[in-house]
Amino acid sequence: MPKNLIKPTTLKGFRDYLPSSMIAREQLIETARGVFRSYGFTPIDTPALEYSEILLGKGSDETDKQMFRFTDPGNRDVAMRFDLTIPFARFTAQHLHELALPFKRYHIGTVWRAEKPQKGRYREFMQCDFDTIGSNANGADIEVLLVIHDLLESIGFSKFTVRVNNRLVLNGLLDKLGLVDSSVGILRCLDKLSKVGHDNVVKEMTEVVGTTTEQAESVLKLAALEGTSDQILAELKTMLSGNEAGEAGVEKLSELFGSATAAGIPNDRIALDLSIARGLDYYTGTIYETFLGDLPKIGSVCSGGRYDNLAGLFTSQVLPGVGASLGLDRLLAAMDELEMIDSGSTPAPVLVTVFDARRHADYLSVGRQLRQAGIGTEVFIEPKQMAKQLKYANRKGFRIALIAGEDEFEKGTWQLKNLESGEQIEVPADGLLEKVQEVLGV
Amino acid sequence: MPKNLIKPTTLKGFRDYLPSSMIAREQLIETARGVFRSYGFTPIDTPALEYSEILLGKGSDETDKQMFRFTDPGNRDVAMRFDLTIPFARFTAQHLHELALPFKRYHIGTVWRAEKPQKGRYREFMQCDFDTIGSNANGADIEVLLVIHDLLESIGFSKFTVRVNNRLVLNGLLDKLGLVDSSVGILRCLDKLSKVGHDNVVKEMTEVVGTTTEQAESVLKLAALEGTSDQILAELKTMLSGNEAGEAGVEKLSELFGSATAAGIPNDRIALDLSIARGLDYYTGTIYETFLGDLPKIGSVCSGGRYDNLAGLFTSQVLPGVGASLGLDRLLAAMDELEMIDSGSTPAPVLVTVFDARRHADYLSVGRQLRQAGIGTEVFIEPKQMAKQLKYANRKGFRIALIAGEDEFEKGTWQLKNLESGEQIEVPADGLLEKVQEVLGV
Repeated sequence: MPKNLIKPTTLKGFRDYLPSSMIAREQLIETARGVFRSYGFTPIDTPALEYSEILLGKGSDETDKQMFRFTDPGNRDVAMRFDLTIPFARFTAQHLHELALPFKRYHIGTVWRAEKPQKGRYREFMQCDFDTIGSNANGADIEVLLVIHDLLESIGFSKFTVRVNNRLVLNGLLDKLGLVDSSVGILRCLDKLSKVGHDNVVKEMTEVVGTTTEQAESVLKLAALEGTSDQILAELKTMLSGNEAGEAGVEKLSELFGSATAAGIPNDRIALDLSIARGLDYYTGTIYETFLGDLPKIGSVCSGGRYDNLAGLFTSQVLPGVGASLGLDRLLAAMDELEMIDSGSTPAPVLVTVFDARRHADYLSVGRQLRQAGIGTEVFIEPKQMAKQLKYANRKGFRIALIAGEDEFEKGTWQLKNLESGEQIEVPADGLLEKVQEVLGV
Repeated sequence: MPKNLIKPTTLKGFRDYLPSSMIAREQLIETARGVFRSYGFTPIDTPALEYSEILLGKGSDETDKQMFRFTDPGNRDVAMRFDLTIPFARFTAQHLHELALPFKRYHIGTVWRAEKPQKGRYREFMQCDFDTIGSNANGADIEVLLVIHDLLESIGFSKFTVRVNNRLVLNGLLDKLGLVDSSVGILRCLDKLSKVGHDNVVKEMTEVVGTTTEQAESVLKLAALEGTSDQILAELKTMLSGNEAGEAGVEKLSELFGSATAAGIPNDRIALDLSIARGLDYYTGTIYETFLGDLPKIGSVCSGGRYDNLAGLFTSQVLPGVGASLGLDRLLAAMDELEMIDSGSTPAPVLVTVFDARRHADYLSVGRQLRQAGIGTEVFIEPKQMAKQLKYANRKGFRIALIAGEDEFEKGTWQLKNLESGEQIEVPADGLLEKVQEVLGV
């Protein structure tokens, strides 16, 4: 590289999106938007930069270290947002008088974290959150479940399970066992269950948290309950009988599973899983995690839950809510692994090759005609050698090349080359659109 | 506000997007994406943060002052991107071996400038650029014109003009007049023509740039040429006869207008305007500006042109290109002023009100049924008073409210309230979808 050139490079932990990955990304995001909107969730956006004081909130030193924080040219202490939750809380408090409650929003935006980059983890990534705030109604929790279901289905997955729990159930049990004060420690142990196994969890609960072995076994019995949601709910009803929080949790879960099933969600796509203990210090009611049937090890691709108060840092108005976050990067990695992503780097399936310079307007016209019928069509920009144009077409992943020279223009025909099969046929110009539609299957 | 709360506020020059403006914004961007893709332009993205050295390039002190620049936690000198052009140049140089040339990309992304905020000018805004690089072919210039036309038409404008010029024409004239060395100064004078008028431009050209009055008048005669593009091109042919650059410019413009017309662009939407002198030191061939028929004073809403070399800072490979930038904020302001934006804050037109708690699953089912037919449908999350639900519906701008209580469920009917006309009718459940489609006109 000559000395006077600047080396083109991205910062550590940052990445460019090349066409093929960006096409998949845009499609995924558009699908998600379509689902959110279909349920009446509205989009919002907030700035990338905020006062550090706002983003830090009551955050830990950990949060502080993860922020891209600096002094702006106006001498303000500012930082780039590291999630969409705090900006949403600030937004809500600031615009409360302009919003009709319940307020249902989605927010798809980039966030930045100065973390140590590792495989699949970047310093810049996109979050995709949706929430309903301003209501305790279980109807909002049910809707979040339906939305998660429709998101996964619309993206193209058929085998997946939304696993649901409700913190109130565990709270009820801990209350019955006299362990309410140890709940954080117990949840922390329980969260390790799938990694360390039953015996180690009992050991940690007794030794670190200080429960009796019987208490630990009771908690683990709850987490281990298996069967259909109806069976588990029936057992829970007995176990938690007489405890107010516990009974409320069972009631809410019963209503959630009943309504989801009645609304047409297949039974094998939702499961009651009492071992979910995520969001220890945050979620207070329903909790959701979503696993792919073909790639469960990739982890939850859509998680969330109910919380008591969104914006307590910024307003004295209590705003309970429920929502979830779609893991875009994780989903794209899964789709890639499951070969659900087209490797092409063109969003248009048809290339009109250009053979005869004097006919440029005719090539443009056919492009226009196909486009008006909704078929993405690129017209090559100059009359290069046909071999070069076809190489370009194959490299970018076009599905059809249209070719016409003097002969074809005279006869009023087009050569249609199917780039997937290699087959080439001659088509009358007035039947071209139909034939293209037939080959593309649209 | 209680003392322990943090005041929810955005930074000076930054803004939140509330639902109604964000819905319009998303729609505009989706329309633009659809047009870009239909021509085979592919999306890319680059990081918000880059090495300052890259963003500064050979930039001026002015650029430096406009950047949000800081030292990151890893002690790197970094800055937030202030346009999409330099990142695109860096991207192209870095990934050249992975891209098939000609490379056609669009890039819609946020940029940041630490400028003094003023009406309609923010420190954070979105740019929307599209370019074809790696070719000098005039076919790419013609395509840019078609894309600009289709963008404006798809967004919903019918009265607009894409004004086109070609730097080669003026270069040819200056060459003939022996004024090539003064071209920057002359272009600068010419750019003020609409503001200061003919006489002041002549005065400045003679007094500041040092031309003769005859030379100044010749340049102004060119800029003042009027008529159809054919008429102007005929005059230019005579004026520039014998000058290579000038003749090439006339030739390219002739081909551009000829092809665009042949491809079906209405004549009143394109105009040859030799007074356009934008991008003095950047554009080297075709130049585009786009004005709205109903709001010309808002300025150009889509501008661009051809340049000789995109990425000279980062690679020795010469990459000529042509492209334009769609002014999203300006367009949204125009659409707002022309009342082209729906003031509603819901992306779903139908609200299913909830009357009978025991029937929640039935309300959810009808929502699901309408959604599956492509009609955005929100189901209210709880059985509140009907008046409150209807108030919510009106405030958010729903177009239809569906209502059913015990009576309706028994009869198998729904009450359909048209929220625009106020009219309420009873519809059999099995004809509900058709009636909703009829009222919505879909």
